[in-house]
Amino acid sequence: MATVSLKQDPTVLAARLTRAAETAAAADIDALLISPGSDLRYLLGAGGESFERLSCLVLPAAGRTAPPVLLVPKLEELGYADVPADELGVEVRTWVDGQDPHGMVTDLLRRGGAAPARVAVADAMPALHTLPLRAALPGAEQVLAGPVLRELRMRKDAAEIDALRKAGAAIDRVHARMAEFLRAGRTEAEVGADIAAAIVEEGHVEADFVIVGSGPNGASPHHAVSDRVIEQGDVVVIDIGGPIPEGYNSDCTRTYAVGEPSQSDVRETYAVLQEAQRAAVEAVRPGVTAESIDAAAREPIAAAGFGENFVHRTGHGIGLDVHEEPYVVGGNSLVLEPGMAFSVEPGIYHQGRWGARIEDIVIVTEDGVESVNNQPHELVVLPA
Amino acid sequence: MATVSLKQDPTVLAARLTRAAETAAAADIDALLISPGSDLRYLLGAGGESFERLSCLVLPAAGRTAPPVLLVPKLEELGYADVPADELGVEVRTWVDGQDPHGMVTDLLRRGGAAPARVAVADAMPALHTLPLRAALPGAEQVLAGPVLRELRMRKDAAEIDALRKAGAAIDRVHARMAEFLRAGRTEAEVGADIAAAIVEEGHVEADFVIVGSGPNGASPHHAVSDRVIEQGDVVVIDIGGPIPEGYNSDCTRTYAVGEPSQSDVRETYAVLQEAQRAAVEAVRPGVTAESIDAAAREPIAAAGFGENFVHRTGHGIGLDVHEEPYVVGGNSLVLEPGMAFSVEPGIYHQGRWGARIEDIVIVTEDGVESVNNQPHELVVLPA
Repeated sequence: MATVSLKQDPTVLAARLTRAAETAAAADIDALLISPGSDLRYLLGAGGESFERLSCLVLPAAGRTAPPVLLVPKLEELGYADVPADELGVEVRTWVDGQDPHGMVTDLLRRGGAAPARVAVADAMPALHTLPLRAALPGAEQVLAGPVLRELRMRKDAAEIDALRKAGAAIDRVHARMAEFLRAGRTEAEVGADIAAAIVEEGHVEADFVIVGSGPNGASPHHAVSDRVIEQGDVVVIDIGGPIPEGYNSDCTRTYAVGEPSQSDVRETYAVLQEAQRAAVEAVRPGVTAESIDAAAREPIAAAGFGENFVHRTGHGIGLDVHEEPYVVGGNSLVLEPGMAFSVEPGIYHQGRWGARIEDIVIVTEDGVESVNNQPHELVVLPA
Repeated sequence: MATVSLKQDPTVLAARLTRAAETAAAADIDALLISPGSDLRYLLGAGGESFERLSCLVLPAAGRTAPPVLLVPKLEELGYADVPADELGVEVRTWVDGQDPHGMVTDLLRRGGAAPARVAVADAMPALHTLPLRAALPGAEQVLAGPVLRELRMRKDAAEIDALRKAGAAIDRVHARMAEFLRAGRTEAEVGADIAAAIVEEGHVEADFVIVGSGPNGASPHHAVSDRVIEQGDVVVIDIGGPIPEGYNSDCTRTYAVGEPSQSDVRETYAVLQEAQRAAVEAVRPGVTAESIDAAAREPIAAAGFGENFVHRTGHGIGLDVHEEPYVVGGNSLVLEPGMAFSVEPGIYHQGRWGARIEDIVIVTEDGVESVNNQPHELVVLPA
């Protein structure tokens, strides 16, 4: 039931297909092979869920004469009924159990000219299909389609930005209700189950992830929930999100205290974190690099002596996937452009004691930055 | 929140690791590289969810001296806390952003003897990792691990069979409540939402799939739900399932009529289907082939003139995945053995009018068959 439908304007999809074909050609790639997942949703507005039966968009690079073909199992054809194939000039072909879909892809790739020398497969394609496709085309180099698709996907259009705003507002409403869920005496798992329900109530298709990191568990950034009973004075990291019906994801972290914090260093350390997160968000604008945002978050934390306690990258792109390009990390010299969307989420973690993280999803605008998350950034002290 | 935890007896996991290493050696494979997914859950009792950061069990084949290593991102180490690594003799290594995990796997593969000539990757491994692992080991042939893992996974042990029984009983309870949900005047989507909630109420972690195929939609085997309003006299295919906390899946189909069927051929055709499904289940025992079960379902349907209306294979294996080996399909000469579990689910589909399917999960016993689904197989006529 995790499927989300994303009925898209055919002219938008057509432009994406054209740009993907052009970007592939520029990278000396002869064709893109896109199996179900977010890349297929991005290009066709629909993504199948098939695993063992191959579904694949065969998209020739610009300059090749064969039309794009969507090859799907006959049984699953209806799952692609929303794809405006005729308007996109995409030929839909089906196969049935007993046929060789990998061989069929190879035949399609050999139409309309020379045999392909370089074929890109979707990053998400399982080895179950990647290896047979390679074996069926022994003369062609197999590369990843990710570098082509990310050139498109990391620059969001107006409709995508609206969807991210809607997702941000939905998860903000869940954070605004936190006093309903988070109290001393309850387990993280109990709190998490209530939050998961609220994520759906506030407009998500499902709760994709719910982190309730209380007390020492807050010091493990990827902790989910546990049977730990929340105590008065605990600091609690709440990192939550999921997809809205348009397919785009929310992801927002706030840190709470259940009554006045019992650890004496919380207020002072949290102030450093809050300043770092604010500085990093304010550094976002077109023309600066992704790594400069990471540095803007890292510098005040390091200056306060907590450099070793900030153990992860500052952020990740977000859209149809919760984690996608651009990654806000040291070494990424990508120059930010309007329409790029990513998290800014520094954290400070004291192993065995407590942790804190603040995360907003931000969008690069023409001259600065817009945050889609707007709940207060202060440490929120809830009644115990 | 789709993660399921499956805390396993270490001696069971140790035996699985040993058998996997032996089966790999017998297939001239030097090592198995198992990324998150059901294969990793099967071998270690835990599966991560990471996509862009590599997690990988490096399992040398029997006869090689290096120990197995679980390589995980430092950030996600806690997600593997339930893995009894010490008892299994599995070394846990972590990597951090900026390191090259694919190169680290290669270094691990070169320990303890000759460079590997043949390395198998998990069927589910995304191309994002499959291709870099291939590039990092240019001298080695890359093959699928599926043929090794399926030799283990398709023969269920007593605990796995108990889990499948528990899942079967849970989904049977949902079918037993169908009159609460399925009525004329409601849309398929409304009925589906209620069923999804009941799937969770009756003991599943989540509703993985809910098919409500009413009237003509019942003729599309992989239809999910739609806004079609169910009418009095409709025949409705309900195919539902999901994982229980142990990680094993349910999958059960029954066909209902909302009031007396309005199509005049329903009773007679359904009787053929019911006989076919019963005959196929009764044909299951050790020593017969998977394709013979497919034939046992197909023959009575073909004899009644509906051969062309049964458009899919008869069944699929089930366990940690909803679809796994063995597949009950023409051409599969696999000989059934005790402990194999799969669906028996023939269907008859009249395009544009109606369809019907009956599905039970069955387990091959020492001398016959056990069905884990036991709701009545008759066409259930509900009050309209």
